Amino acid sequence: MGKSVRETFRVPVDQLDPRARPLGPRDKATAAEEMVELGERLDQLQEALYAEAIGGGRRAVLLVLQGMDTSGKGGVIRHVGGLVNPQGLHIATFKKPTDEELAHHFLWRIRRQVPVAGRIGIFDRSHYEDVLIARVDELVPEDVWRGRYTEITAFESELAAQGVTIVKCMLHISEKEQAERLVARLDDPAKRWKYNPGDLDARAKWPAYQEAYAEALRRTDIDAAPWYVIPSDRKWYRNWAIAALLAETLTELDPQFPQPDFDVDAERARLAASGVS
Amino acid sequence: MGKSVRETFRVPVDQLDPRARPLGPRDKATAAEEMVELGERLDQLQEALYAEAIGGGRRAVLLVLQGMDTSGKGGVIRHVGGLVNPQGLHIATFKKPTDEELAHHFLWRIRRQVPVAGRIGIFDRSHYEDVLIARVDELVPEDVWRGRYTEITAFESELAAQGVTIVKCMLHISEKEQAERLVARLDDPAKRWKYNPGDLDARAKWPAYQEAYAEALRRTDIDAAPWYVIPSDRKWYRNWAIAALLAETLTELDPQFPQPDFDVDAERARLAASGVS
Repeated sequence: MGKSVRETFRVPVDQLDPRARPLGPRDKATAAEEMVELGERLDQLQEALYAEAIGGGRRAVLLVLQGMDTSGKGGVIRHVGGLVNPQGLHIATFKKPTDEELAHHFLWRIRRQVPVAGRIGIFDRSHYEDVLIARVDELVPEDVWRGRYTEITAFESELAAQGVTIVKCMLHISEKEQAERLVARLDDPAKRWKYNPGDLDARAKWPAYQEAYAEALRRTDIDAAPWYVIPSDRKWYRNWAIAALLAETLTELDPQFPQPDFDVDAERARLAASGVS
Repeated sequence: MGKSVRETFRVPVDQLDPRARPLGPRDKATAAEEMVELGERLDQLQEALYAEAIGGGRRAVLLVLQGMDTSGKGGVIRHVGGLVNPQGLHIATFKKPTDEELAHHFLWRIRRQVPVAGRIGIFDRSHYEDVLIARVDELVPEDVWRGRYTEITAFESELAAQGVTIVKCMLHISEKEQAERLVARLDDPAKRWKYNPGDLDARAKWPAYQEAYAEALRRTDIDAAPWYVIPSDRKWYRNWAIAALLAETLTELDPQFPQPDFDVDAERARLAASGVS
């Protein structure tokens, strides 16, 4: 038996090439075929998770997406999130905090977006911004952001204990690939709205961000909420890897359709008596 | 030129056969082909609407789904909502009101779920429950639910003036088709979780509901927020009709990618100076 998808991608960020393909399809066409099958599996598993919650189950899944600008967080939501029933998704995008959010503890806005039972939550950025940009741009003193590693692992352990299976993915791209994607956004009028001049400011601090990511991932990689590093220079490989990771995670959760809390035969009789049929 | 999709389905509920196919594909296979093309159109239009809002646009779309149990509200969310990027959707399901919701005006919980600019909101049930079940089950006095027709049209006119294009769909099924779908839910263990014994109580009041629907649609069918009656005994036709309705609506809105608020050439130069590329 080879390694599982989860074992394969649970590696330190500085030990993975953004173009690596340690597992799975070797080319885009094969990946597309596998995505069809993964989509069917994910759709079925997600429906069972949703149904389980209708029956009183408390389990949910939370996919946390982090990565530099253009690394593909939005692409994963579109191409992997798009594989399942949108009713079963809860998508939250965390931008620069508002004044109200800043007046609260940094986890306040995060807690409000934790998926309810039965849903797959997807976070486009997350509480990790509070140990990434907060560190690189010195938004808070070092002792504050350092203290957050423990606050984060405590929070995530609490969620896990409540039934939320957390899957944290760092979308790992190279500096060169980011440049190409930014050029593409500038060149295509239908993509220009995705371009933000501020992205270049973050790009100018690439090594500081890589260091911040490496330490954040190392300090918060716990079994209750592991980090996966996804080689993301190839979009099709990135999408395949995350779909495969989710499918493996949900397969292990093995969500169950609930047993009816009513008498099926009695309902059949009532229905027959209700006319027409 | 034939009638538009919107004209075709803007008809009184008591004048449309739930198996009618006044427009569009004649069989399931043709509908499946057309859905692929509609999906591509919807996806592009929705992306443009989303982008327009990033550029400061204020427009949004709100699809309101009403219909008897099993009429396919969830199916439309899955099969039509599933055609676009889930990040561009805002789905809200309105169940029996909570104590907190009941302590507020009936539109309070609705207002909280109005889609933000750039999104397609989908309401699985809505404020129309407050003139349907509220009437049939006499939850409030007649003068109260009658007064709500005006409150609703005022509310919807306000939303329309703010830039929300409202598309209200009544999923019209026959009593016989409902019986078959309820039997199917009882028979299939993977569908049983969708069955609720309370559905038979509403079924027993079929004529009262049809009367409540007919009057509600007549009283709230305004140009700012028209009602469409969707023949829904055939699931594939229902999905096609709503996808076609949305595509026509969005095509007319003609959302525009925003003009950049930065100097594209200057950004190209900054990017070139940022190394690697």
